[in-house]
Amino acid sequence: MPRYALKIEYHGAPFAGWQRQADQPSVQGAVEAALARLEPGEHRIAAAGRTDAGVHATGQVASFDLAKGWDPFRLSEALNYHLKPQPVAVVAAARVADDWHARFTAVERRYVFRLLMRRAPATHDAGLVWQVKQPLDVAPMREAAAHLIGKHDFTTFRSSICQAASPVKTLDEITIEEVAGFSGPELRFFLRARSFLHNQVRSIVGTLERVGAGAWAPGDVKTALEAADRAACGPVCPPQGLYLAGVGYPEDPFG
Amino acid sequence: MPRYALKIEYHGAPFAGWQRQADQPSVQGAVEAALARLEPGEHRIAAAGRTDAGVHATGQVASFDLAKGWDPFRLSEALNYHLKPQPVAVVAAARVADDWHARFTAVERRYVFRLLMRRAPATHDAGLVWQVKQPLDVAPMREAAAHLIGKHDFTTFRSSICQAASPVKTLDEITIEEVAGFSGPELRFFLRARSFLHNQVRSIVGTLERVGAGAWAPGDVKTALEAADRAACGPVCPPQGLYLAGVGYPEDPFG
Repeated sequence: MPRYALKIEYHGAPFAGWQRQADQPSVQGAVEAALARLEPGEHRIAAAGRTDAGVHATGQVASFDLAKGWDPFRLSEALNYHLKPQPVAVVAAARVADDWHARFTAVERRYVFRLLMRRAPATHDAGLVWQVKQPLDVAPMREAAAHLIGKHDFTTFRSSICQAASPVKTLDEITIEEVAGFSGPELRFFLRARSFLHNQVRSIVGTLERVGAGAWAPGDVKTALEAADRAACGPVCPPQGLYLAGVGYPEDPFG
Repeated sequence: MPRYALKIEYHGAPFAGWQRQADQPSVQGAVEAALARLEPGEHRIAAAGRTDAGVHATGQVASFDLAKGWDPFRLSEALNYHLKPQPVAVVAAARVADDWHARFTAVERRYVFRLLMRRAPATHDAGLVWQVKQPLDVAPMREAAAHLIGKHDFTTFRSSICQAASPVKTLDEITIEEVAGFSGPELRFFLRARSFLHNQVRSIVGTLERVGAGAWAPGDVKTALEAADRAACGPVCPPQGLYLAGVGYPEDPFG
């Protein structure tokens, strides 16, 4: 059976997360249902990252087998037709090798977090950003973020329900950009690693926000990291600013 | 009674337009209801532009009288509290002179239109842009737009239900910018005039899209304008890409 990979974009709000659940809408369930319109029967697809409820994606990657040989472009068009009106879109499709796997072949995950700084409630960007009412000072946030780069025990920044075998991860990048967003000034956080712990990005961004607000000093983040204690973490920020932006493979299947 | 001005942002999707209607939700009705929570009774507010159903605003301006003297900042905070969870937000408030009027004192309206060019259906920006599937060629669009600048009879670009006394308007600006939007490449149209005819912006953008797609030559827009005939217009584009972005006054009340 030929194997395919999809690059998928979605709005997280209507879903209980990526992973299929018996009685709640999920992105995986939506894509599997669309596949069943093309080839009747059960479909089981694998994804690079199992995003939580409310978390968005611009570059999730999934893989699965089909019985027929499909032209990748026609496959993406047919799936987008059947996914409507749900806010899930296939932005690229590719035929991949039979042993290629969206999760196990991946060597990098990239996340973007959008934080909007303004007082009046967001209207157009509601549900797409984490809104804080006061401006944040980005220089100490960058100083604090630098302490997290590299290989560390990230127990402090890990959800208590995280199922990863080890809390040691290597964070390759945290960049914070100031962007003139459509609704006002935004901070955009770019995080890159081979893999992340559960809630790691939201734990880091929530803690860095405290630094930007002046409640924490940059060095407090280093102290919190070294404590290797979940209780040392700052507040975990909400999901609606988080986007799984891309997944890296030894060779880009969509390239 | 002291008079106030508000700068208002809203998402157009849930509303039948700005103007209050007996049996449908309107932005005017939402703001008047919030005012009634502050000072019980009927409120009648005036706006600079009566946007259509589905049209957004980032800088609508409204004026009204209240019985009490309100601190403008506290007024905006109280209104935002009562407007929740509707996607309407007061982004600025000011005390103005008793003869100041959001509509009649205005000397300029500014609109922005967002056009997203990509094939896969938009998810995060659904309802916030007009999406076209093919890339457009912006150079001939700019050439065509230049024919519309200045004082003209805009009958071609005017809805048949437009109630303006004259079809002659002076268009001070049409600028088309190429922007790397969050969901893909966008064209953003900036239009500026003392006032606009009904559907004028959407008629112009819809016609310019035909030029960008190669179906019309730039000179065809000049011919259509000179025809002064509604039947000569290109397709009117949908409302969800349109934003009332700002209103100009002899003195900025929020400055």
